[in-house]
Amino acid sequence: MTYFETRRLLVDGHLQKIAAAITAPPPLDEPIRRSLTSSGKRVRALLTIAAGEALGCKAEKLLDAAAAMEMIHVSSLILDDLPAMDDATLRRGEPALHRAYGEDLAILAAVALLNHAYGLVTANHLARSPRLWPAHQIIQRVVDAVGWDGTVAGEAVDLHSEGSTLDFNTLEFIHSRKTGALFVAAGAIGAMLANGDPSVVRRIEIYARNLGMAFQITDDVLDETADSRQLGKDVGKDAGKLTFVRLAGVEGARQLARELVETSLASIASLRATADPLRELAVMVRDRVR
Amino acid sequence: MTYFETRRLLVDGHLQKIAAAITAPPPLDEPIRRSLTSSGKRVRALLTIAAGEALGCKAEKLLDAAAAMEMIHVSSLILDDLPAMDDATLRRGEPALHRAYGEDLAILAAVALLNHAYGLVTANHLARSPRLWPAHQIIQRVVDAVGWDGTVAGEAVDLHSEGSTLDFNTLEFIHSRKTGALFVAAGAIGAMLANGDPSVVRRIEIYARNLGMAFQITDDVLDETADSRQLGKDVGKDAGKLTFVRLAGVEGARQLARELVETSLASIASLRATADPLRELAVMVRDRVR
Repeated sequence: MTYFETRRLLVDGHLQKIAAAITAPPPLDEPIRRSLTSSGKRVRALLTIAAGEALGCKAEKLLDAAAAMEMIHVSSLILDDLPAMDDATLRRGEPALHRAYGEDLAILAAVALLNHAYGLVTANHLARSPRLWPAHQIIQRVVDAVGWDGTVAGEAVDLHSEGSTLDFNTLEFIHSRKTGALFVAAGAIGAMLANGDPSVVRRIEIYARNLGMAFQITDDVLDETADSRQLGKDVGKDAGKLTFVRLAGVEGARQLARELVETSLASIASLRATADPLRELAVMVRDRVR
Repeated sequence: MTYFETRRLLVDGHLQKIAAAITAPPPLDEPIRRSLTSSGKRVRALLTIAAGEALGCKAEKLLDAAAAMEMIHVSSLILDDLPAMDDATLRRGEPALHRAYGEDLAILAAVALLNHAYGLVTANHLARSPRLWPAHQIIQRVVDAVGWDGTVAGEAVDLHSEGSTLDFNTLEFIHSRKTGALFVAAGAIGAMLANGDPSVVRRIEIYARNLGMAFQITDDVLDETADSRQLGKDVGKDAGKLTFVRLAGVEGARQLARELVETSLASIASLRATADPLRELAVMVRDRVR
């Protein structure tokens, strides 16, 4: 097994453990459990682990925070799929959560997942001493990633700019928040839990921001070139939207993703640490649309 | 001005300051700002301040956490009002947020408010040294109050038990989570920020749980006896639901609220502190339905 296959198994196992232990009453328990255990690439969780391991922290001590990143991501997918948002039917090869359990339980499950992610991020904070970063600074990274400067802002602007003429800057605004912000938090938090000093955390954030944008662009390419069975979600949902593919064409978008991955790699080139996991993750993202 | 009138002004001023400083892009900024500045009783914020001041902490140092409690509460109201939930039209004397701005922005505003509340709760943590309670324990109180053990669980069970025959225990389950859990967190966090020791925090939690239940019951009574102009929200929404009024009658519910307030007061009777703010708050809740 490759490095990331073993790490993905660790993440999946941890999410299953969390799912088995949730105390939500019926009928809220099922949609939460399904969200935690449905298949996913776990790229944000892997980013947290790769950043922490690159700085010498053990994977086991990064699992709570890694699971938290995945829960925040899943929470945002549930909300994005709602009829009032993207109105999706399919997610990760199964009916979107609101299709299976109703809108009310989907919304409540999304809030519960986000909420518990906050507890997990700080639970992990005690894993390593001495602690260079206080818990409230770690929490603040999540707050910045999710809220009115992060995914929520990106989603709002995305939904309300459909049909209007968008330029590259607006598209960059949307995706640096919808996708990039949580990538940045995932990398930063992994590094912070490993006691990375501020300059190292900063470099990993630059790495993560560029990687997040590359990942989003490869998603746009796959939405254009793959079918819904392969992706496990609706495709062609971007038809009414401006995407990087519509701006630059499939080949141009591929090229842009490759360049962003190169920028990612450059930002960690001089990292005095075993940055191999971070390099491997960047290559994995690049090769999604090779 | 009474003690609580001055404290409510402080809370309102702080929420206005937060609203003025938010960096959300249009069209997300307006619904968030309106939610932060619409009028409210601020009872959860007052509870945080009263608990902290009872233990000798200055009100100014409790304002971030108090505002966070209010933001979490407002966030839950926005979600409760959605068509998929209670489908309300009126809230705090204005159209429900989704009626004014659309469901998508209402949901995103609710998530953003909850998210930023987490940042505020821990921001306040640095206010007083030495710190008896680590930040992650304070965060955990919020997690317990909001998620699958808290308001989200209460709301899910409430929505999915309509029409069925409920007993007192189920009703208590719902409201101890929908209302009680955030009251408990609000009291506990005020006490923790004031460096209250575990036994004191515990007593304030018991106080808050009973007060929260009393507050919910007075809400049920007002839903039955007041009109929507007085309350600023839809009334008669409880018609299909089992409430404490339907179980015990208006007089019985009033009596139950009074008894719960007495239990509240008893739990802080021996508090070696200036518990006057907590006593005054309990009396204020009791007198809503005198």
